[in-house]
Amino acid sequence: MRKTGKRIKTVAKRQRGAAKRSGPAAPDQDEVMALKLRPAKLSPAMAELFRQSEETLGFVPNVLKAFAFDMAKLEAFVAYRNGLMLGPSGLSQLEREMVATVVSAQNHCFYCITVHGASVRKLSGDPVLGELMATNYRSARLTRRQRAMLDFALKLTVEPWAIEEPDRARLRTAGFSDRDIWDIAAVAGFYNMTNRLTSATDMRPNHPYHALAR
Amino acid sequence: MRKTGKRIKTVAKRQRGAAKRSGPAAPDQDEVMALKLRPAKLSPAMAELFRQSEETLGFVPNVLKAFAFDMAKLEAFVAYRNGLMLGPSGLSQLEREMVATVVSAQNHCFYCITVHGASVRKLSGDPVLGELMATNYRSARLTRRQRAMLDFALKLTVEPWAIEEPDRARLRTAGFSDRDIWDIAAVAGFYNMTNRLTSATDMRPNHPYHALAR
Amino acid sequence: MRKTGKRIKTVAKRQRGAAKRSGPAAPDQDEVMALKLRPAKLSPAMAELFRQSEETLGFVPNVLKAFAFDMAKLEAFVAYRNGLMLGPSGLSQLEREMVATVVSAQNHCFYCITVHGASVRKLSGDPVLGELMATNYRSARLTRRQRAMLDFALKLTVEPWAIEEPDRARLRTAGFSDRDIWDIAAVAGFYNMTNRLTSATDMRPNHPYHALAR
Amino acid sequence: MRKTGKRIKTVAKRQRGAAKRSGPAAPDQDEVMALKLRPAKLSPAMAELFRQSEETLGFVPNVLKAFAFDMAKLEAFVAYRNGLMLGPSGLSQLEREMVATVVSAQNHCFYCITVHGASVRKLSGDPVLGELMATNYRSARLTRRQRAMLDFALKLTVEPWAIEEPDRARLRTAGFSDRDIWDIAAVAGFYNMTNRLTSATDMRPNHPYHALAR
Amino acid sequence: MRKTGKRIKTVAKRQRGAAKRSGPAAPDQDEVMALKLRPAKLSPAMAELFRQSEETLGFVPNVLKAFAFDMAKLEAFVAYRNGLMLGPSGLSQLEREMVATVVSAQNHCFYCITVHGASVRKLSGDPVLGELMATNYRSARLTRRQRAMLDFALKLTVEPWAIEEPDRARLRTAGFSDRDIWDIAAVAGFYNMTNRLTSATDMRPNHPYHALAR
Amino acid sequence: MRKTGKRIKTVAKRQRGAAKRSGPAAPDQDEVMALKLRPAKLSPAMAELFRQSEETLGFVPNVLKAFAFDMAKLEAFVAYRNGLMLGPSGLSQLEREMVATVVSAQNHCFYCITVHGASVRKLSGDPVLGELMATNYRSARLTRRQRAMLDFALKLTVEPWAIEEPDRARLRTAGFSDRDIWDIAAVAGFYNMTNRLTSATDMRPNHPYHALAR
Repeated sequence: MRKTGKRIKTVAKRQRGAAKRSGPAAPDQDEVMALKLRPAKLSPAMAELFRQSEETLGFVPNVLKAFAFDMAKLEAFVAYRNGLMLGPSGLSQLEREMVATVVSAQNHCFYCITVHGASVRKLSGDPVLGELMATNYRSARLTRRQRAMLDFALKLTVEPWAIEEPDRARLRTAGFSDRDIWDIAAVAGFYNMTNRLTSATDMRPNHPYHALAR
Repeated sequence: MRKTGKRIKTVAKRQRGAAKRSGPAAPDQDEVMALKLRPAKLSPAMAELFRQSEETLGFVPNVLKAFAFDMAKLEAFVAYRNGLMLGPSGLSQLEREMVATVVSAQNHCFYCITVHGASVRKLSGDPVLGELMATNYRSARLTRRQRAMLDFALKLTVEPWAIEEPDRARLRTAGFSDRDIWDIAAVAGFYNMTNRLTSATDMRPNHPYHALAR
Repeated sequence: MRKTGKRIKTVAKRQRGAAKRSGPAAPDQDEVMALKLRPAKLSPAMAELFRQSEETLGFVPNVLKAFAFDMAKLEAFVAYRNGLMLGPSGLSQLEREMVATVVSAQNHCFYCITVHGASVRKLSGDPVLGELMATNYRSARLTRRQRAMLDFALKLTVEPWAIEEPDRARLRTAGFSDRDIWDIAAVAGFYNMTNRLTSATDMRPNHPYHALAR
Repeated sequence: MRKTGKRIKTVAKRQRGAAKRSGPAAPDQDEVMALKLRPAKLSPAMAELFRQSEETLGFVPNVLKAFAFDMAKLEAFVAYRNGLMLGPSGLSQLEREMVATVVSAQNHCFYCITVHGASVRKLSGDPVLGELMATNYRSARLTRRQRAMLDFALKLTVEPWAIEEPDRARLRTAGFSDRDIWDIAAVAGFYNMTNRLTSATDMRPNHPYHALAR
Repeated sequence: MRKTGKRIKTVAKRQRGAAKRSGPAAPDQDEVMALKLRPAKLSPAMAELFRQSEETLGFVPNVLKAFAFDMAKLEAFVAYRNGLMLGPSGLSQLEREMVATVVSAQNHCFYCITVHGASVRKLSGDPVLGELMATNYRSARLTRRQRAMLDFALKLTVEPWAIEEPDRARLRTAGFSDRDIWDIAAVAGFYNMTNRLTSATDMRPNHPYHALAR
Repeated sequence: MRKTGKRIKTVAKRQRGAAKRSGPAAPDQDEVMALKLRPAKLSPAMAELFRQSEETLGFVPNVLKAFAFDMAKLEAFVAYRNGLMLGPSGLSQLEREMVATVVSAQNHCFYCITVHGASVRKLSGDPVLGELMATNYRSARLTRRQRAMLDFALKLTVEPWAIEEPDRARLRTAGFSDRDIWDIAAVAGFYNMTNRLTSATDMRPNHPYHALAR
C-alpha cells in the first residue's frame, strides 16, 4: 500500500500509450500534483474516457490523472461527478459551473477556479462572467434566481452550520424546487470536497484551460 | 424534474416493502430531511444494501434514504463512500472515522458528528474518544501520528488555500506515505462535502446512533 | 506564592481524608489539570460540599478540586456559581444548562461540554437534547423562547461588542423580563469565563459525566 | 422574579441615602445600564463598600450599582473579583490590570476598557501605557514576561480551544509559576465574563474614569 | 456640494471632446460606477493624461473618470499613484503589480483584480502568473524574495495589527532594504485604499482589461 | 536606492535646522518608526508646512517626518490627505475624523487611534466621544446620520467585497448625497491605507497627542 511510484506526471505517458496516442510532447505532460503515486493500468472504461478527453479537449484533465493510481476510486469519482454535473437537473450546466466557480473562489483553489472559470466562459460565451465568478459574484449583474443560488452556495461554503429553513425558503421563492435545492447543495458540497483534495495535493490545472474561451 | 413528491420519510415505508421487512414502527421512520423528494424504486443492489443495513444496524441510515430519489446518484455515492471508508488504505477504519468526526465537529454538523462519533466509539471501544473527536481533539491524548493526521484534516477544512509542502512534509515525518496523504485529504474532503449536504437539507441522524457504543 | 506542589490529582486523596471517605480507588483520582498546585486544607464548608458531592454524584467535580489550592477562591467561586445556576431565576435550571452547553460548544471546551451536556440530558430526560446543545443548537426543535435565548447567548459569546438594543428587544418579545435578560447574560458570561479557565489549565472532566443520563 | 423596577440609575439616589452622602448631583447619577432592575436594600457590608467607594473614588462604580438588585449576587461578585484582583498573587496589581485591559480591548468593551485602562494609567503612572493596552499591546515596549503574559491572555480570549502545553511552557520559560499561570487564566477568564455582562446590558462607565490619571 | 450630476459615464463624452478624439462608440462609454457625480472640466494636465491614455490603452481607465468630478482630487490621486507605482524603487514595476493583485484578490475587488491582474500578465509576459496572483499566490512557483514580499503584503492586509519586527526582519533576510520595506507597505496600503473605494462605489473595469495580455 | 541612512529620528534635527527653529529638545525628537530612511532636504513648501506644524501643534507629526525621505512622496501624500480631510465636503471635519478613528480602531492601529482620537476630542469638545470612537462606536449615542456613516465605514473596512447597493441606499436614506458617499468611502479607504503604512513601519505617535483635548 505504501510503496510510492514515480511522480504521477509519468502517468501521461503510460496512458497515452494505452490510448494509442502519439505526437509531440503536449502540455499535459507537466506536473500533475505534489504526491508521487504510481499509476494503475487504466480499465477499459477509463482508457476510453482518457481517449475521449484527448480528442475533445486535447488533454486529459489532471484530476483524472491524479486519481488514476486506483481504478475503483477513479471510476467512482467520475461516476459521481458526471451524474452531478452532466446528469439531468433543474439547474443548467452553466448554473452548476457558476456554483462550482463561486465555491472554488471562496476557497482560493487555483486548480478549480481555473477549470470551472473556463467552463463558465465556454458555456456562457461570456469571458467576463467567468472572471466575475472567479473574483466576486456580487459584482455581476445576475438574475434574482442566479443570485439566490450563489448566495446559498456561498453561505453553505462559509458557515454550513447556519443554513436553516429561511435559506431554503429564499431559494423556493426564487423559483427552485426541492430537487433543485438538493442539486445546488450537492454541487456546492462537491466542490468543497474537490477544492480540498486539489489544495491538499497541490494539483496543477492543465495549461490549456487558461486560454480557453477567452 | 421539478415535481416534488411526498416528504421523503415515506421512503422508509416503500423501502421496507421492497426489503420484505416487517414489524413495529422503528425509530428510522422519523423525519429524514427538510426536502420533499419522491423516492425512486430501489435497484436490486440498493435494495440489498438497505436490507443488510436493517439486518446489521436495525435501520437504514438516513443519508441513504435521502439519496434514494435517484438510483444513479445513490449508487455513485455509495460506491465512492465505500471505496473511501472501507477500501484498502494505510489508514485504519478508526483513523478514517476520527478524521470524519473532527471535520464534522469543525463544521458543527449534527448529522455527521452523531454518525461518525458513534463509529469512533464503536471501532475504538472507547466512548470518551468519540466525544473528544466531537468536541476538541486537542484535548485527547493522541499519538504523534494521529495528531499530525487530525491537524492536517482540520487545516484543510478551515483554510484549504494555506496547505503547502511543509504541511505534507509533517505528515511524511509522522510516518505517512504519499498514498496515505491522499487518503487523509480524500476523507477530510469527503466530509466537507457531506457536512454541507446534510446541513443544507437539515438531515436528521437515525435515533439509534445516539446510544451506540456508549 | 510561587512554590508549586505535587500534581493536584493528589488533592483527591487528602480531601477524601478530610471528608472521612473510604473505599476503592474511584475515577475521580485521575488527572485533574495540567497545573501542579498544592491543595490547601479544606474549610469546613468546603469539606461538607466535597462530602455531599461524593454522596450525590459519587465524585468531586474536578473544577472544585482545581480551585482547592486556595479556600477563599474556592468558596467565592462556589458562591457565585451556585447563586447563578441554582438560585431563583426566571430561567429554569434546564434553560441555564442549555445556555452553558451552547456557549461551551462554541468555545470547543471539552470539560464544560461534557459536564453541562450531561446536565442537559439529566434535567431534560432527553439524551438527544444534550447532544444537540453540544453540537449545533440550530438543528434542535426549540420553542421561540429557547431559540431567542440561545441566539442571544451565542452572539454574546462570538461578538459581544455587537449586542445592542434590538438584541435585547428580541428577548423581551420572546417573553423575557429585564431580570431574565440579566440572567441569560450572566450565565453566558460565566461560561465564557470557565471555558477559558478549564482550557487554559487543560482541566479534565470526571469520567462518570460521560455516561450520565444517556 | 419578573417584576421590573424603575431604571436602575435611581439606585444611585437610594444608595447615596444609605451612605449618608450629600452634595450636588454628581456624574455618577447618570444612566447605569439598559436594563431596569429594582435595587434591593444594601446589606451592611455592601453599604459600607458603597460608602468607601464614594470616599475614595468620589462615586460608586456602575458595575456595583448594576448588581445591586440582588445582595447575594452583588456580594458573591465582589468577593470573587476582590480575591482575584486584590488578593495575593505572583502577578502585580498592574499586571492583572494590564491583562484586564488587553482582554477588554479585544472584546471592544467600552465599559471595561474605560475602567481598566484608567487603572493601568493610575497603577503605572504612565498614561501612554494605558492607551497602549487599550489599542494594541503589540506596539508597547514590554518586558518578555509582560509580553508572554499578554500573548497568553489574548490567545485565551480569541481561541481558548487552541491553548495547549506549549502555551503554558512559554509562560514558565518567561518565569511564571503554575500558580501564576492559574492567575493569568483566571483574570483573562474573568474579564471575558464581565466584558460580556457589561456589553449585554450596555453598562456605562462612570464619567470620572475618563480623566483619571491622564 | 450636494447637487449630483448626471451619471458619470457621460464624463467620457465630455472628456473625449476635450481630448479632440473622434470615432465610434468605444468600450469606455460603459458604466463607470454606481455614484452619479457631475464631471468637472478637465485641467490641462488631466486632459493630457486622458489623451495619452486613449492613445496608449485605447481608453481612459474608469478610476480616473470616477475621480474626475474634482480636479484637485484627481490630480492628487494621480500624483500619489504614479509616484508609488511608476517612480524609482527597489521593487520592479512587476513586483509592485504583484503586490497590488494579491492585495486585491484578498479583498475580492473585481475592479482591481481585473486591472492589476492584466498588468501582471503584461509586465511578466506570463498570463498564468496573473491568474496565480488573482487566485492564490501560494500556488505559484516564486522566488524566496517574491514569496516574502507577498506574505508580508497579505499579512498587512489581513491583520495589520500583528505586523512586528520579525516580519520586517524576514524581508531584510530576503534581501529587501528598509526603503524597499516602505515601498512594499506603501503599495499594499494603497491598494487596501483603492480596493475599498472601488468596492464602495461599484466601480467597473474597462472591458479591454479582460483580454489584455492573455 | 537601497542605501539606508541613519534612523529617521534624526530627520527632526535636520528639519528643524531647515526651518530655522531652535530651543530645547522637544518630544518630537523621539523615535519616529522602525525603518531607517535618510531624510531628504525639505522642499520650500514642506519646510513651510513643518514650520507651521511646530507653531500650531508644537511638533511635526511623525507621519510627515516618516515620509520626508522623498519630497515627491511627502508632497503627494500631504496634497491627497489635505484635500480629503480639510477640503470642501458635505461631511464636517469632525465627521471625517470620526470615520478615521473608527477605521483605525477596527485595525488596532496605535498611531492612528492616538492621532485621530485626539482630533475627535478637539473638534467635538467632547473627550468621551473620542474614546467611544476609539473603543466601540456602537456604545455612543449617535444621530442616525452618524450611525449610518460609521456602519458603512466599518463594513467597508471589514468586508469591502460585500458592499452593495442596499448599503449605499441606506446612506442616501440617512441624508447623504452621492458626493458624500464618495467622501465617506474615500476617508475610510484612506485610513485603511495609513493604518497599514504606520503598522508596517511601527510608526509612533508624537507624545503630545495623548493629552490633547482631554
